[in-house]
Amino acid sequence: MSSEVNILLIECPDELGIIARVTTVLTNHKLNMVEFHEFADEETGQFYMRTGVTGKLDRIAVEKDIAAVLPTGASFRFVNNIRKKVVIMVTKETHCLGDLLLRHYTNNIDMDILGVIGNHPDCKELTEKFDIPWFEISHKGIERAEHENLIIQKIKELGPDYILLAKFMRILSPEFVAEFPNRIINIHHSFLPSFIGANPYRQAYNRGVKIIGATAHIVNNDLDEGPIIYQDVTRVDHSHSAVEMSRAGRDVEKNVFTEGIKLVLKDRVFVKNNRTIVFA
Amino acid sequence: MSSEVNILLIECPDELGIIARVTTVLTNHKLNMVEFHEFADEETGQFYMRTGVTGKLDRIAVEKDIAAVLPTGASFRFVNNIRKKVVIMVTKETHCLGDLLLRHYTNNIDMDILGVIGNHPDCKELTEKFDIPWFEISHKGIERAEHENLIIQKIKELGPDYILLAKFMRILSPEFVAEFPNRIINIHHSFLPSFIGANPYRQAYNRGVKIIGATAHIVNNDLDEGPIIYQDVTRVDHSHSAVEMSRAGRDVEKNVFTEGIKLVLKDRVFVKNNRTIVFA
Amino acid sequence: MSSEVNILLIECPDELGIIARVTTVLTNHKLNMVEFHEFADEETGQFYMRTGVTGKLDRIAVEKDIAAVLPTGASFRFVNNIRKKVVIMVTKETHCLGDLLLRHYTNNIDMDILGVIGNHPDCKELTEKFDIPWFEISHKGIERAEHENLIIQKIKELGPDYILLAKFMRILSPEFVAEFPNRIINIHHSFLPSFIGANPYRQAYNRGVKIIGATAHIVNNDLDEGPIIYQDVTRVDHSHSAVEMSRAGRDVEKNVFTEGIKLVLKDRVFVKNNRTIVFA
Amino acid sequence: MSSEVNILLIECPDELGIIARVTTVLTNHKLNMVEFHEFADEETGQFYMRTGVTGKLDRIAVEKDIAAVLPTGASFRFVNNIRKKVVIMVTKETHCLGDLLLRHYTNNIDMDILGVIGNHPDCKELTEKFDIPWFEISHKGIERAEHENLIIQKIKELGPDYILLAKFMRILSPEFVAEFPNRIINIHHSFLPSFIGANPYRQAYNRGVKIIGATAHIVNNDLDEGPIIYQDVTRVDHSHSAVEMSRAGRDVEKNVFTEGIKLVLKDRVFVKNNRTIVFA
Repeated sequence: MSSEVNILLIECPDELGIIARVTTVLTNHKLNMVEFHEFADEETGQFYMRTGVTGKLDRIAVEKDIAAVLPTGASFRFVNNIRKKVVIMVTKETHCLGDLLLRHYTNNIDMDILGVIGNHPDCKELTEKFDIPWFEISHKGIERAEHENLIIQKIKELGPDYILLAKFMRILSPEFVAEFPNRIINIHHSFLPSFIGANPYRQAYNRGVKIIGATAHIVNNDLDEGPIIYQDVTRVDHSHSAVEMSRAGRDVEKNVFTEGIKLVLKDRVFVKNNRTIVFA
Repeated sequence: MSSEVNILLIECPDELGIIARVTTVLTNHKLNMVEFHEFADEETGQFYMRTGVTGKLDRIAVEKDIAAVLPTGASFRFVNNIRKKVVIMVTKETHCLGDLLLRHYTNNIDMDILGVIGNHPDCKELTEKFDIPWFEISHKGIERAEHENLIIQKIKELGPDYILLAKFMRILSPEFVAEFPNRIINIHHSFLPSFIGANPYRQAYNRGVKIIGATAHIVNNDLDEGPIIYQDVTRVDHSHSAVEMSRAGRDVEKNVFTEGIKLVLKDRVFVKNNRTIVFA
Repeated sequence: MSSEVNILLIECPDELGIIARVTTVLTNHKLNMVEFHEFADEETGQFYMRTGVTGKLDRIAVEKDIAAVLPTGASFRFVNNIRKKVVIMVTKETHCLGDLLLRHYTNNIDMDILGVIGNHPDCKELTEKFDIPWFEISHKGIERAEHENLIIQKIKELGPDYILLAKFMRILSPEFVAEFPNRIINIHHSFLPSFIGANPYRQAYNRGVKIIGATAHIVNNDLDEGPIIYQDVTRVDHSHSAVEMSRAGRDVEKNVFTEGIKLVLKDRVFVKNNRTIVFA
Repeated sequence: MSSEVNILLIECPDELGIIARVTTVLTNHKLNMVEFHEFADEETGQFYMRTGVTGKLDRIAVEKDIAAVLPTGASFRFVNNIRKKVVIMVTKETHCLGDLLLRHYTNNIDMDILGVIGNHPDCKELTEKFDIPWFEISHKGIERAEHENLIIQKIKELGPDYILLAKFMRILSPEFVAEFPNRIINIHHSFLPSFIGANPYRQAYNRGVKIIGATAHIVNNDLDEGPIIYQDVTRVDHSHSAVEMSRAGRDVEKNVFTEGIKLVLKDRVFVKNNRTIVFA
């Protein structure tokens, strides 16, 4: 997909003829559709569409014409098929961060990393190896609200499209999340069955699970809940100690996080209530 | 997807505005699109589209209008979203046949089995357990052309949409294949690396492969080549004997064959040259 | 593995030299080890061993010598590498039952099916197609204890090694389970995250999960808990309705159940507390 | 597994009683087996064993006793369960190298990287970010034999246990390979079906394959053949351009290479003829 592609994203109540009207507008403006996905959700009556177009885009004119053919309650926007800007937040673990830094360095992921914010110093060295700005904002000796405010301020100063929680281990308040709706991506271990509470890998070990997994999701309420973007699993067996399960878990976390981020970066993810529509 | 869905399939040279024009026709006829896939192949300049529509279909009128908006060289057709009719061909092995018969019996696959044709008697009993007509057409004592003619005659008499080679172990002549273009589905073992010649499981064993696979494909020339519909693999290791590899291979063959058939039955597969476009 | 293989299974407290002493006994009796797995669980201090031996087995003499070299608290037994006997229990769904019947018919699973017990008539026809005895024991109009007693009586009359719950949808009482300790195998859907309560596929749909799974496990307490034997998952997306998720779930249930049963039939599964050691 | 574990590796003609005799020697020396794998290959009559032992190892005494109980033609050795030393060879691509450097930095792989040898300068910067010695040995202007000799000299100077070809794109001569028998690990793309010759991703695209894979293998003759250690695949479809297939291929190459290396580093891989026995 060349860089001149513009992505049109539409969400609106479903009704007869939306695709016809929108694509007629695009055609009238000599825009050629090179990608097209739509989904009409029978449950909610909502319509979703993502299309990539090539051709000279007179955005104001096209947006005016599209607005005219969409039903009341529609939202839509064009996004340039350009690299997104992200801020990464970490605590101590480096496995998810490292994979992102490396892909960024080798130009294997379409994003610019504006900076890495850590509440511990552990990830500083790795971040700086790749010449990415490091911001240490410790939570020590201050209230949570104050700590979060410092982070919010720094994020706003940097101005990212998305905030990537690469094993940031503090629970974010609803106030923090409300600042960046549907723009915070988290990675969470997950198991069959799932385990609540401390040390899930120990619990998984005790239960003798045979697969362990990870879930990349949007943060819109609790840290470990929220609309799911991507999931995967890996096999373990009785000979895996709790530590080895945790190591296997880190590998699957890393891969799932990166896959989930890639989907978000390409504007393939719509969020509705606690659910995603992912045009993979 | 309810049974009143009609599927529109289009293949034509790509040009600006096809989607807009076609969807406008559909909307004018009060047809609501509930599924939509398209692909514009930059390599070949060919455009493919599959859409499922609900609403009262005045087929003659709609087809006339669609024909009027498509470029020269276009082919298109409506297919009812109904159960397809198939004939299954077998030799001795029952694993692929059995899975199809069982899914058919439990109403877990959208096809009617008009009959099973075998060149050996081995699959007769299983077929008849499920009250499916069995036709034994032995190749013994007759020339290949004569044998194939007997099969062609029987197939034409039965009138299926597709012919499923569920481990039919004789090579089909180009003449046979030409009778049913893009309508014969085969299942073939496959390996990394691939092995030519007799006893591939023995070769795979000798080479110590760690995964073995299977490929479901359209037959349009050689028995084991042709446009690929679906593939999958399974893990093996040094402790698998050649016989056990073969057993593991049968399980993956069975699953891949069924998945490939499901895609064909739902008209999700376009064929162009030696390649498929699969709207999964 | 030829039919003359005998499997020796040992479980005992771990201590120095067990393998040496046991294998020396086997060698003294001219028994050749063709398979060997062991696991010393550091957590529990328990030792597990499974070895397949060929050669003429004077069982009484060998067992006497092995008993003499094992620590106090050891349990061990020889099992012939023969087909196990099973009874299958069902309610209405046929997908797991059908796969077992088909594999049994095509000699693709090493077990004899002594009979199928159903509390509804739905699976009768399929069972009888394969000439397997069908026993309908309805729960209607009787107390649970009485119903379970009728089933227990029938199972004891048939005398299986294992009881396979192929979508038997009634919760078994602790009394029932206590009759067949570690001999009841169940299949259970499972999800990331997991869902408690009614209609898990609907809950999974609402949550927008991207993979759904299944777990084969030993029943030793609750119906859907117990030591895990085998697990696997399959991918779904937003376009899967709750019904389609359920269909995808049935396929993964079927495959996981069969894989789990195969492991049990080959005596590869040890149970300790709520955990398994699986020598796959 | 703690660092005091020693691994005993045995390969010899199979005969009755080997396990008993060897484990008796180990027990007599108060060595406790914490891991144990064996395989008797019926095809070749060869016996393989890998066991991890804890306890004070008087290596000379134990080796003498083990030698005394093994049949003629046996080879065996103890390896400390310590980090192996490796040299990595690269050409231009960074995806496999980067993953190894990152895992090394985060202490997530048990090896020391003595240096990276490149015949192009492309990987210099990434290597030096991680403070690993970089050696550029260009092939320009010199004969292949001379170039290989320079590399051999450098490798011998560094003294690694293994040489990892992380996308080293030059074919190694039999003379080079003979210098390091069974000690060179390579990563190779692989496909179903497999493609010979230039630009395999283009060929795979033209053929419309639905999965692409990678193979980690020992180099003992041709660059892209040799005993297979580990394999895996990833899914692609018609919408993947040849370039995107290549990108997906790089991810699977990276993961497969790392998994294969981990198996080698833990001495889990035996090589016999063109086949491996992998005690995973």
